[in-house]
Amino acid sequence: MENIFFGAEAFPKLQEFLQNKAFSQVLVLADENTRRDCYPLVKKFLPEHQILQITSGEANKTLQTCETIWQFLTEKQFDRWSVVVNLGGGVIGDMGGFCAALYKRGITFVNVPTTLLAMVDASVGGKTGVDFSGFKNQLGIFQQPTSVFIDPVFLETLSGRQLKSGYAEMIKHWLIADAAAFETQRWNGLLAADWQELIPEAVKIKSRIVQADPLENGLRKVLNFGHTVGHAAESYFLQQPGRELLHGEAIAVGLLCESYLSEQKGLLSNSELSKIETFLASVFEKVKLTPEDIAGILPFLQQDKKNFRGTINCVLLESIGKPVYDQPVTLAEVEKSLRYYQLI
Amino acid sequence: MENIFFGAEAFPKLQEFLQNKAFSQVLVLADENTRRDCYPLVKKFLPEHQILQITSGEANKTLQTCETIWQFLTEKQFDRWSVVVNLGGGVIGDMGGFCAALYKRGITFVNVPTTLLAMVDASVGGKTGVDFSGFKNQLGIFQQPTSVFIDPVFLETLSGRQLKSGYAEMIKHWLIADAAAFETQRWNGLLAADWQELIPEAVKIKSRIVQADPLENGLRKVLNFGHTVGHAAESYFLQQPGRELLHGEAIAVGLLCESYLSEQKGLLSNSELSKIETFLASVFEKVKLTPEDIAGILPFLQQDKKNFRGTINCVLLESIGKPVYDQPVTLAEVEKSLRYYQLI
Repeated sequence: MENIFFGAEAFPKLQEFLQNKAFSQVLVLADENTRRDCYPLVKKFLPEHQILQITSGEANKTLQTCETIWQFLTEKQFDRWSVVVNLGGGVIGDMGGFCAALYKRGITFVNVPTTLLAMVDASVGGKTGVDFSGFKNQLGIFQQPTSVFIDPVFLETLSGRQLKSGYAEMIKHWLIADAAAFETQRWNGLLAADWQELIPEAVKIKSRIVQADPLENGLRKVLNFGHTVGHAAESYFLQQPGRELLHGEAIAVGLLCESYLSEQKGLLSNSELSKIETFLASVFEKVKLTPEDIAGILPFLQQDKKNFRGTINCVLLESIGKPVYDQPVTLAEVEKSLRYYQLI
Repeated sequence: MENIFFGAEAFPKLQEFLQNKAFSQVLVLADENTRRDCYPLVKKFLPEHQILQITSGEANKTLQTCETIWQFLTEKQFDRWSVVVNLGGGVIGDMGGFCAALYKRGITFVNVPTTLLAMVDASVGGKTGVDFSGFKNQLGIFQQPTSVFIDPVFLETLSGRQLKSGYAEMIKHWLIADAAAFETQRWNGLLAADWQELIPEAVKIKSRIVQADPLENGLRKVLNFGHTVGHAAESYFLQQPGRELLHGEAIAVGLLCESYLSEQKGLLSNSELSKIETFLASVFEKVKLTPEDIAGILPFLQQDKKNFRGTINCVLLESIGKPVYDQPVTLAEVEKSLRYYQLI
């Protein structure tokens, strides 16, 4: 946590960092939204820099966009002593980190997350990467940002849909690591959330888990709760023009399906499943799933990175706050959980 | 060195490794030459596997070729517990390692080098990557192969030109780390070289340096002797159809130019420069450089990864066996060294 700065001190710390390190050049990576809404708020804290704007959205988290970034760095003659400042949400952070980690075998990068999702999840933990051939994060590496600067001021630039998307990851953090916070927050809800307090708490949960197992050989896998089914749903809808889900919206589907799977496997109690169901239903609109959608989601489960020899490995809950990883589930069981979701 | 196996035990050790680790799937990456000449020699030591053939040559060490490899892995549903066996020279090793390191955030890879260059240099040390936008290894990461299996039997499949290309890196190893070997070998020459003895010695030099400084923060830079000018020449001729140089052929140019720079800077004695000149001239045909070629090579120096704030940093020799790194040189000095090369 020592390299993560919160709240009012975040931007001054960014300024101090960029000044002290005396980088040869600074690139700010933004998309059209963060360039318009966030860049003006942070600009005065930045030394002389270049800014590169890419098109927002998961559909652009591709090698092609990376080539644009690498071409820019090459043409502007960025050397190994330069830095990339990722000003954006999960897509900018994942892709900017990936590009920096590979350019000339690695230059420095820092994250200035602008979405709730990136603040509580994506910007911390060192997972960088891009989608490939329709599969989420099929290419990537583990590379920690040198620092992360988190100021909730950017939350005012977000739509309600984006705020909810980040909130899904916070609910996940409570489900896997903090039963007490889950209990409090399910009564508070999204609208009464105190970001100045909740964001550092959520980051602390993630940091603790990542530091214990940075390369995801064991414990870190619990962070994937909701992501086995969630990623598959996200990948599927990415290919359904007009029906794309935000990451957290897909994860909300995954959290429910995987809580159901936990209950079906005799782990989670029925009453705890009900609590999860009620809380998620109070925040998220239900994603409408046709039988064709369910049939379309299932093949994506086969490419999940957690699979071992064709077995789908899932994180399940023994109870709220107590996850277990490497739990094999079958396609038939996942299909049943999606039908459960359909019927809630 | 504990994971590098030489000579007659190399292939049995490869067999043992693949059996013991029980990988979910095995991909052998080859090019048309190694598929034809090398694959038949090693095939019986391999368990059930897939083989993917790509087109040989530095011109194909690109993201595009990587996409072919990643597409293959994706379609064949390779998971995180699979392995890539790089059967080839430096291009296959660099690119296969790069693809494995990024696929699903990293799967295992091993190198089975088939060229002298790859045996003594490229297959050891963990530099993986591809060329981008005309610049050598512009994208890459440090990732060690799990093991390297080196059997000189493959040297019989090489042309004289390819053999010389690898020999250039061996001469470099002697110049930066073993004055005695330089003295012996400049009398023996290429034809009298005892590979069974010389290859492990060369690998030992490189391994020792890499282990002391895996991420090239200091000492490891000495391995770049000859590579500042050499890479620029290689990149330039890569864009001159029909005049492409093999890596070692370009490095031989760089070794001479950078030895000359060392002498000009008052470091290397004139008599040692003469010895280097005579030895290299006895092995390598001279690359014909027109004034246009020299003018064309210089801009590539600007993108060298060792540069710091526009200064070209070079490795120079204080004497044979004693390199110094981070030595600034100007474009004018490099130009003069290329004119010296022209006139030898």
